[in-house]
Amino acid sequence: MFEIRFEPDGNKIHISEPMTLLEAAERAGIIINAVCGGAGTCNKCMVEVEGRLVRACQTRADRDMIVTIPDTSRFFEQKILQEGIDNLDRIDPLVCKHYVNITEPTLDNLRSDADRLIDAVNDNSQAQHHTCHNHAGTSSGTTTITWQLLKKLPSIYRNHSYALTTVCHDGSVFALEPGDTTQNLHGVAVDVGTTTVVASLINLQTGKTIAIASQTNPQVTFGDDVISRIDYSAQNPDGLEQLQRRIINGLNQLIANLCEKSVIKPWQIYELTAAGNATMQHILLGLPVEQIAQAPYVSAVSSAVNVPAASLGLDIHPEANVYVMPSVAAHVGGDTVAVGLATAMRHSSQINLALDIGTNGELILGNSQRLLTCSTAAGPAFEGARIAQGIRGAAGAIERVHIEDGQVHITVIGGVPPTGICGSGLIDALAELLNVGIIADTGRMLDLDELPANIPQSLKERLIKHDDKPAFVLATAEQSKHNQEVLLTQRDVREAQLAKAAIAAGITTLMNEFGITLNQVDNLYLAGAFGNYIRPESARRIGLIPNLPLEKIQFVGNAASTGAKQALLSRQARKHAEELGKFLEYIELAGRTDFQNIFSEQMMF
Amino acid sequence: MFEIRFEPDGNKIHISEPMTLLEAAERAGIIINAVCGGAGTCNKCMVEVEGRLVRACQTRADRDMIVTIPDTSRFFEQKILQEGIDNLDRIDPLVCKHYVNITEPTLDNLRSDADRLIDAVNDNSQAQHHTCHNHAGTSSGTTTITWQLLKKLPSIYRNHSYALTTVCHDGSVFALEPGDTTQNLHGVAVDVGTTTVVASLINLQTGKTIAIASQTNPQVTFGDDVISRIDYSAQNPDGLEQLQRRIINGLNQLIANLCEKSVIKPWQIYELTAAGNATMQHILLGLPVEQIAQAPYVSAVSSAVNVPAASLGLDIHPEANVYVMPSVAAHVGGDTVAVGLATAMRHSSQINLALDIGTNGELILGNSQRLLTCSTAAGPAFEGARIAQGIRGAAGAIERVHIEDGQVHITVIGGVPPTGICGSGLIDALAELLNVGIIADTGRMLDLDELPANIPQSLKERLIKHDDKPAFVLATAEQSKHNQEVLLTQRDVREAQLAKAAIAAGITTLMNEFGITLNQVDNLYLAGAFGNYIRPESARRIGLIPNLPLEKIQFVGNAASTGAKQALLSRQARKHAEELGKFLEYIELAGRTDFQNIFSEQMMF
Repeated sequence: MFEIRFEPDGNKIHISEPMTLLEAAERAGIIINAVCGGAGTCNKCMVEVEGRLVRACQTRADRDMIVTIPDTSRFFEQKILQEGIDNLDRIDPLVCKHYVNITEPTLDNLRSDADRLIDAVNDNSQAQHHTCHNHAGTSSGTTTITWQLLKKLPSIYRNHSYALTTVCHDGSVFALEPGDTTQNLHGVAVDVGTTTVVASLINLQTGKTIAIASQTNPQVTFGDDVISRIDYSAQNPDGLEQLQRRIINGLNQLIANLCEKSVIKPWQIYELTAAGNATMQHILLGLPVEQIAQAPYVSAVSSAVNVPAASLGLDIHPEANVYVMPSVAAHVGGDTVAVGLATAMRHSSQINLALDIGTNGELILGNSQRLLTCSTAAGPAFEGARIAQGIRGAAGAIERVHIEDGQVHITVIGGVPPTGICGSGLIDALAELLNVGIIADTGRMLDLDELPANIPQSLKERLIKHDDKPAFVLATAEQSKHNQEVLLTQRDVREAQLAKAAIAAGITTLMNEFGITLNQVDNLYLAGAFGNYIRPESARRIGLIPNLPLEKIQFVGNAASTGAKQALLSRQARKHAEELGKFLEYIELAGRTDFQNIFSEQMMF
Repeated sequence: MFEIRFEPDGNKIHISEPMTLLEAAERAGIIINAVCGGAGTCNKCMVEVEGRLVRACQTRADRDMIVTIPDTSRFFEQKILQEGIDNLDRIDPLVCKHYVNITEPTLDNLRSDADRLIDAVNDNSQAQHHTCHNHAGTSSGTTTITWQLLKKLPSIYRNHSYALTTVCHDGSVFALEPGDTTQNLHGVAVDVGTTTVVASLINLQTGKTIAIASQTNPQVTFGDDVISRIDYSAQNPDGLEQLQRRIINGLNQLIANLCEKSVIKPWQIYELTAAGNATMQHILLGLPVEQIAQAPYVSAVSSAVNVPAASLGLDIHPEANVYVMPSVAAHVGGDTVAVGLATAMRHSSQINLALDIGTNGELILGNSQRLLTCSTAAGPAFEGARIAQGIRGAAGAIERVHIEDGQVHITVIGGVPPTGICGSGLIDALAELLNVGIIADTGRMLDLDELPANIPQSLKERLIKHDDKPAFVLATAEQSKHNQEVLLTQRDVREAQLAKAAIAAGITTLMNEFGITLNQVDNLYLAGAFGNYIRPESARRIGLIPNLPLEKIQFVGNAASTGAKQALLSRQARKHAEELGKFLEYIELAGRTDFQNIFSEQMMF
C-alpha cells in the first residue's frame, strides 16, 4: 500500500497496485491536463516529484510519493465561451445590504436585540431612494432574522458596535458585518454542464461579472454522459454521494479561484444560482437520479429548489441561499429553462427556435402563445467523444477544415501541430467531404473506385483504409506533432450522422407539433459553448441545423449561464423562470409514433 | 477513576473522587427523589446496587458500580396541576395529513415525483368537507415539499406504493407514510418552567390531551432561579450549551414517557410548541442569555421562533417544527403571553388581572383597550426555596395550617408524617400567626413577653428560639417522621414578606399606571400550579393577592401550558399570540421612581 499526496491541495490517496500519476491524481479528485489522452506526447501533464519535473501520464506511482501539481497542468484549458447575451430588465436581487445604526437598549427602549435590528432595517429600507423590495415586497411581507444569526446577535452588538451592515435574503437577515460593507455585495451563477462547469462571480449591485472560472466537471471520471453517471449512482451504495461530493468539490475549487481573482472572501458570496440538466441539478442537490433513467423517465422535482449553502457543503456564506433553477422534465433541465429565460422567447410574438447542443441537444420552439421543448439523445460526438481522434476544443484540436483546389486546409487551436479533432472541425470536415463527394449523402465514405472522376489526386491519396474501412487523412503524419495521422473514419461519420439526425428529427417533430414549416421560423438561437465555434454553413450543410438564411441565425453564447446570472440578479427573472418551467410543453420523442420515421429520414445528409 | 453506570437509562459517568450516588446520578443527568435533601431520612431515593436496595444519598460511589434506579425513586412526584382552562375557538393546527393516491408516471404524465405529490395533496385538500387551511391559506399560498423529503421521494414511491399519507406543516410536506395514517396526528405542548417542566401529548384532530408527563427542570442543579443559570452560562465557556443540553435531554425524557404512555412513536409527533420565561426559551433555543441579566435587561429575540426539531436535538420527527412562543421583554416571557392567550384578556371589555406566581411573579392587567404587564422578582420562596424547612409540594409537605382554640391543625400531602412546608402551607401559617397575633403587621415574630394576653398557653409553648431568633413549631418532633420539629422561622417570615411585597407592589404599580383602583378590577385570574393550592383567604390575609371578594377570584390552572396547547392546535391562536406579544405594554419596575415607595408600603402585612 502506497500513500500518494498531492500538493498544494493536500489530497491523499492510498493505492495497493501501481498506476500512473495521472490515474492516481484522478482518484484523488484532481483532473490533470492530458490533451494526448495519456500518450506521453503532449507534455501538458507535467508534475513535480522529488524535485524533478515529470510527465504524470508516464510516471508510475509505485511508492510513497509527494506530487506537486502546478496550475498550468490542471484540467483542460478549454476554449469555453463564458459569456452569453444579456436580457435583464432591471437589477433586483433577492440579496440586499443595509448599513444601520441600531439603537442601544435603554430603560425607555427595552425592545429585544432582534426587534431593534428589524426596526433599523425597515427604517433604512424605506429611507432609500426606492423602497428596498426585499423588505417591502417579500413573500411574507415582513423582515425576519435567521435562528443562526439570532444566536450571535447579542455578542455581535456588544463586542463590535451598533453600527453594522445587515445582509438579507428575501427579507430574512442572515448575516451582520461590522461597519459599512454595503459596497460589497456579490453572488455566483453556475452553469453545471455534464462536461464543463462555468462559475461567474457577479456584482449584485451593478450586475457586472467580476470574474469567471471554469473547469471540466469532475464527475467525468464516472462517465461522459448523464446515463453512465446515473448507472454509477444506481450500482454503488454511496454512488450518489460520491457524485455529489465531486461536483461540490469542483464548485468549491471554482469559488476559491473566483475569490483569488477578485480578492473577495468566500463568506462574502451571499447567494449562488445553478443551472444544469436535470441529472446534474439532482446530483448537486443530492436527489436520487435512478428514476431519470428508468422508463417512463421522470425527475424527483422540477420546481426550483432553495437550500442553504452549508447543507450542501458549498464554501460560500454558510447561510447563503443556493437557488437551483426550475426544470421541465427528466431530460429538459434547468439549463434549458435558463436558455429560454435568456432568449426571452416567452415574450416574443415571433416564432423562435433555440438549439442548445452540449452533451445532449435540447430544443425550444414557439412564441409567447406556446413553447414546445424536447431533448434529443444526440450524444457527445460533437464534444469529441466517441470520435476516433476526437478531443475537446483545446490546444491541438483541429477546429476548422477547408478543402479547396484539392488542398486540405486545417486550423488548429493554439496554432500548434494537430493532435485530434474537435466538434467544429468534425462538422467542417463532414461538410467539405460531402461537398467534394468523398462522403455520399447516405453517409458512406466512398471507396477509391467509386469516387467521382473530378476528385484531385491529392485528395484521393488521403483516402486510406483504417481497420479495413475507409478513412480520410485530415492531417498527415508529417504535419502532426507526434508523427501520427489525424483521421476521420467511417465510424466517425456514422456517429456524427446519428447525432445530427437526432437533433434534426427533434426540430422536425417540434415544427410538426407546432404546425409550422421551416420558413415560418423567424430566428434560430444557437446556444452553448459549442454553438459559438461552428461554422453555420457547415452545420447547415450536414443538416445539424436547419436550412435557414444566415441572417436568421444568432449565436447566443452560454445562454444557460446567462439565465442563471439573470436569476441571481433579479427577483422578476426568477419568477419568469418558474413560470417558464410550467409553460414549456415537454414533447417526449420516445412516445411518438412519428419520431422513428422522421429520424430515419433525417439520417441522410 | 470509577465508572458508575445507571440502569435502565444506560447513562455512564466517570468520577475521580468519591461522592454519594445521589450526587453521581445528578451528574449523569438523572434527578433522584430526595425529599429530605439527602439527609438519609425520607427513604425516597432507594436504588439497587449489587442486588441490594440502598439509599442513594447514603451510599458512596467509590468503585465501579452499576446502579439501577426504579421509577418510584425518580424526581419529585410533584403535585402539579397539569391542566388549565381551555379557550379554543376551533381546532386548526398548522400540521395536517392527507391520504393520497399518487398517479404513477406514464408517457402521458411525465410530471416530476414532486409535482404529482403536490397535485394529489391539493386535490385531496379541496375534496375535504372544508378546504384544508394549510394548503389554501398558507403564508406562501402554495404547497411545497422539503428538501429532506425530496431526497427520499423516489424511493418511497417505488419501494412502498403510491398510496401514501402526507404530513404537512403550513403547506410544506415534510413526511410521507405508507398507507393511510391520517388518524394518527399528534403534537406536544410544553411549559418550560424554571422549576418544573410539563409536557402534554395532544391529538391534533380532537384537541384532546392524550398523556401528560412532568419533571423537575434538570437545570435546577445549576441554580434555583433564572439569574443563577444566566450566571452559570456567563461563567462557563460551554455553560449555555450545557444548560441547553439539560433541558433538551429533559424534554426527550418527557417525550419518551408520553410515547410509552400512549403507544405512539417519537417520529409520529409532528410539532412541538413551548412556552417559558424568556430565559428558559432562550436556553431551549441556544440563544445567549447574558444580556437578560445585564442592565438594561433585554432579550435577544421576542418574536416567536420556529426551528426544526432535529437542529435542537429533540427526539420527535426530525423535520417537525418547534414553535417557541413570542414574549414581551427580558422578564416577561412566552409563558406570560401564553397566560394572556389562555385567559383571552385581549378580547375582554372587563378589567382583568392575571397573576402567575412561579419562581417569579408575572402580572397582566387591563382589557381589550390596553394590557399592561410586569415581572416582579418575587423569588422562589413560595416554591419552598430559601425557607428553612421549605420543600416542594410533594409527599410530606405541610400544605395547610389552621389554628383554632389554641390548637395547630396541619394537613400533610400524602397523609404521611410531615418533613417540611410547601408554599400553600407557608401562606396559611403566616396568615394564621398574623390572625392570632404571634406575628405583628411589621412581620416581626413577637417575643414571649410581647405576646397579647389572650394567646393560649398551647401556642406560647410552640414559640421557641432557633439560632437566637424566634421560631414557631408547626409540627412537633413527635408528630414528624424523623423526630425533628418543622419550624417557621423569623427569617422565613422575612423571605415571604419580601416576595409578597414585590408582587403586591407590582399590582399597585400596574393599577396606578392603568389609572384604576382595586374595586374596578372585575376578575383576578390565578395562574400556575401554585395558584391552585393556596387558600385565597390566607393569600389575601398576607397581602399576596389583592383584597378582592372571593367570587372575583378564578383559578385558571397551568395557563402557560394551556396557551402552548392552544398555539399547537390553532393557527388563529398563534396569530393572537404574536399580536399579544406586541400589544402587551411592558412596565419596567426598576425604571420607576414610585416603585420603591410602593414596595416599602407593601412590606407591611
